[in-house]
Amino acid sequence: MSDGREHFHKEMLKLNELILKMGGMVEQSIFRSVKALEKRDVKMAQDVVNSDDQVDKLELEIDDLCLELLATQQPMAIDLRFITTGMRIATDLERIGDLAVDIAERAVELSGQLPLRPMNDIPKMADLSQSMVHRALDAFVKRDAALARTLWVDEDRADKFRDLIHDELLGIMSREPETTPRAIPLILISRHLERISDHATNIAEDVIYMVEGEVVKHHPKQPSKYST
Amino acid sequence: MSDGREHFHKEMLKLNELILKMGGMVEQSIFRSVKALEKRDVKMAQDVVNSDDQVDKLELEIDDLCLELLATQQPMAIDLRFITTGMRIATDLERIGDLAVDIAERAVELSGQLPLRPMNDIPKMADLSQSMVHRALDAFVKRDAALARTLWVDEDRADKFRDLIHDELLGIMSREPETTPRAIPLILISRHLERISDHATNIAEDVIYMVEGEVVKHHPKQPSKYST
Repeated sequence: MSDGREHFHKEMLKLNELILKMGGMVEQSIFRSVKALEKRDVKMAQDVVNSDDQVDKLELEIDDLCLELLATQQPMAIDLRFITTGMRIATDLERIGDLAVDIAERAVELSGQLPLRPMNDIPKMADLSQSMVHRALDAFVKRDAALARTLWVDEDRADKFRDLIHDELLGIMSREPETTPRAIPLILISRHLERISDHATNIAEDVIYMVEGEVVKHHPKQPSKYST
Repeated sequence: MSDGREHFHKEMLKLNELILKMGGMVEQSIFRSVKALEKRDVKMAQDVVNSDDQVDKLELEIDDLCLELLATQQPMAIDLRFITTGMRIATDLERIGDLAVDIAERAVELSGQLPLRPMNDIPKMADLSQSMVHRALDAFVKRDAALARTLWVDEDRADKFRDLIHDELLGIMSREPETTPRAIPLILISRHLERISDHATNIAEDVIYMVEGEVVKHHPKQPSKYST
């Protein structure tokens, strides 16, 4: 391997590594924001808010690395797509981090108030979203389109969770109007989680395009076409 | 100008053009989705939903053009950043288009029900968001960082609109619980509009970085630092 090629290879590994690091951080933020909500733990929620700076810094680091690779290495074909996909993924991860912060802020808001009811669906939905982020990034580093395609089904499940939570809370608010100020933050949290799963699906679509050069974007509602 | 250089120049103009075209379409979608809500016009709302395919196609076209430019022209410095920024902007515009579709779907949902109250703030907020998208794209094609910076103040205004609408609707729901199913879609619409303004701000940040190579991301809450 020539020196230039070896350097390129090293930089690509570094890109992998930074993306997995950023992914690990936002997965942690999703988990902790919902745990803070369940446990009414303001300190844990604040930790999520505070850790967002680091997530933001990682996005910039990944961006810089990608731009440098594009400018100095003139990569082609799959390498080129890997780098541009890396930039997109960093953007998605940054926004997932922001959504975890939004959830943490709702958790702080609700911590001083009576719990509305035992929460089951929101933690389940959070597990699902976190797993989607994890698998999408795994698919990226393994360049595994089949793994990326497993997210299609989960996106539908996330939508169903959102609708279930929405309908249930709407019922509670109708019967007990005084619960409205506590129910609305929970509706918003279910939306935040659904958006996290959307971002994970965006990543999965980008991975499939990267691997196969095939455009699968904007067809998330046709699982049969892409199921493995 | 050499042939290669001339070709590159033409392709860059085409990129400009495609982004402005896509921007024009999503601006139209924002406008029409909120107009459909105001006028209870299901047909107009459906038009917004249907036009989203074209927006999606434009994103892919822009992506392809950018990848081709990166692969064949090995652009440097500002040109390189212009192309990668173009790819990011297409992603933001696609999501803005999706948010307009979300608003249109809420408009359909509400069209069969009694209006909650005369709506003033939502159309005003929509005007603001649409203007932010317009200016952000204008800043991109003119490579004008000062123009991009004008969005900082507007992002705060959008946040205030969202809070105003939220508080007002919460008050209505508390006093008249039977309005809850009609009020929640309006709260969601104000969130969608706020996210549109966030995407416009993302574009503005990318433009400043593109022009100045300066990282302004993740500092939207410090207008004094970036005001002109």
